[in-house]
Amino acid sequence: MKKLIIASTSTLHGGEYLDYLTPALQEHFAGCSTLVFIPFARPGGISHDDYTKKAAAWFTKLNITVKGLHEFDDAAQALTDAEAVFTGGGNTFVLVSQLYKTGAMAALEQAIKTGTPYLGCSAGSNICGLTMQTTNDMPIVYPPSFKTLGAIPFNLNPHYLDPIPGSLHMGETRETRIKEFHAFNTPPVLGLREGSWLQVNGKQVILKGNLQARLFRQGKEPEELEAGSDLSGLK
Amino acid sequence: MKKLIIASTSTLHGGEYLDYLTPALQEHFAGCSTLVFIPFARPGGISHDDYTKKAAAWFTKLNITVKGLHEFDDAAQALTDAEAVFTGGGNTFVLVSQLYKTGAMAALEQAIKTGTPYLGCSAGSNICGLTMQTTNDMPIVYPPSFKTLGAIPFNLNPHYLDPIPGSLHMGETRETRIKEFHAFNTPPVLGLREGSWLQVNGKQVILKGNLQARLFRQGKEPEELEAGSDLSGLK
Repeated sequence: MKKLIIASTSTLHGGEYLDYLTPALQEHFAGCSTLVFIPFARPGGISHDDYTKKAAAWFTKLNITVKGLHEFDDAAQALTDAEAVFTGGGNTFVLVSQLYKTGAMAALEQAIKTGTPYLGCSAGSNICGLTMQTTNDMPIVYPPSFKTLGAIPFNLNPHYLDPIPGSLHMGETRETRIKEFHAFNTPPVLGLREGSWLQVNGKQVILKGNLQARLFRQGKEPEELEAGSDLSGLK
Repeated sequence: MKKLIIASTSTLHGGEYLDYLTPALQEHFAGCSTLVFIPFARPGGISHDDYTKKAAAWFTKLNITVKGLHEFDDAAQALTDAEAVFTGGGNTFVLVSQLYKTGAMAALEQAIKTGTPYLGCSAGSNICGLTMQTTNDMPIVYPPSFKTLGAIPFNLNPHYLDPIPGSLHMGETRETRIKEFHAFNTPPVLGLREGSWLQVNGKQVILKGNLQARLFRQGKEPEELEAGSDLSGLK
């Protein structure tokens, strides 16, 4: 049975790395003593080693030992064998390219399907959707495909940002960008504000945290979903 | 001899479409009576016809007749024969995909090299760089390549946006995104603020408008360039 936490962001403004998720993660990873961290998204260009150290330091709180996926000779096998998996944020294009290059994408999809507890933040959440086509990231490398894990039957926009009142900037708002996505694609897109996450248990998908999320569907007006909403039927 | 105007945006806040560029465009397109408009970037999903009408309406001011590239049977031939070319803004992924699909990319590169006056705004400016890898747009379609025209020997970030003071948002700033680009790529990136444009005459590249632009080079601190700066040596 699928078991995922899919978070908009790893860190809230003024907070420390992952701390706002502590109670949820304690429950999510209960019984796990090891975790494979996927550091491929490399925020700010950080190395795989340094990024893994950051995650490992946090997970000592839960008495979980972390190893980076880059440390294994066979990335696919490492994910198949993993007790738990966490994919950190950063650049989704870099992440997806590396997941394909190492053969990890298919193995991760399979591990999630067979119930390996998974945590994704930001880019690590983006890849849980059908495609990475609603990422906010710059296309700094060219991935072999935009198709991602499809662990949920719709797309995500993490770090969802409302239009800034009084802004003089003429670049597209997030809402406009997602509207453009729907000129070419049919899947719903959930805009997850920082502080929200999805909890997936089997086919049940629940919006967690204290914030509303914004749902975009092709040909329909966007709608606000309350915290606690059941998104299990969304596709 | 190359002759381009490469603008950050088509429209300034509170202004009308292209109006701030009127004097520059009068000079740029002097002697032209027809222009081919490339509507492929489809901002907000607008149709090729409607987008072309918008451009055509504006160009009546300069007594220039506009035809959309989608109206020609042979897009490559249309660009080879064009007296002048304008590529409008919108989504760079959609634009680049369609330029490759129609065979227009190579023809446009050639037309620019041989001196056809060119205007680009936003996505239409992005494609003047070496690659589209510093676009702000969402990857809503999958292009066959990120390589673009290389009409200038560096990359652009149109609608360049400074960090917003006091923002509580944890998504990456534009500067962080460009820094991440430089973790994987060497070309310089010029952040063009709304109101700035580049004027290219042969090998001469001048920063026009009243604003500074922000220059990012791999392994160096970003620097502010004054309006009027000569960027001819930048590569």
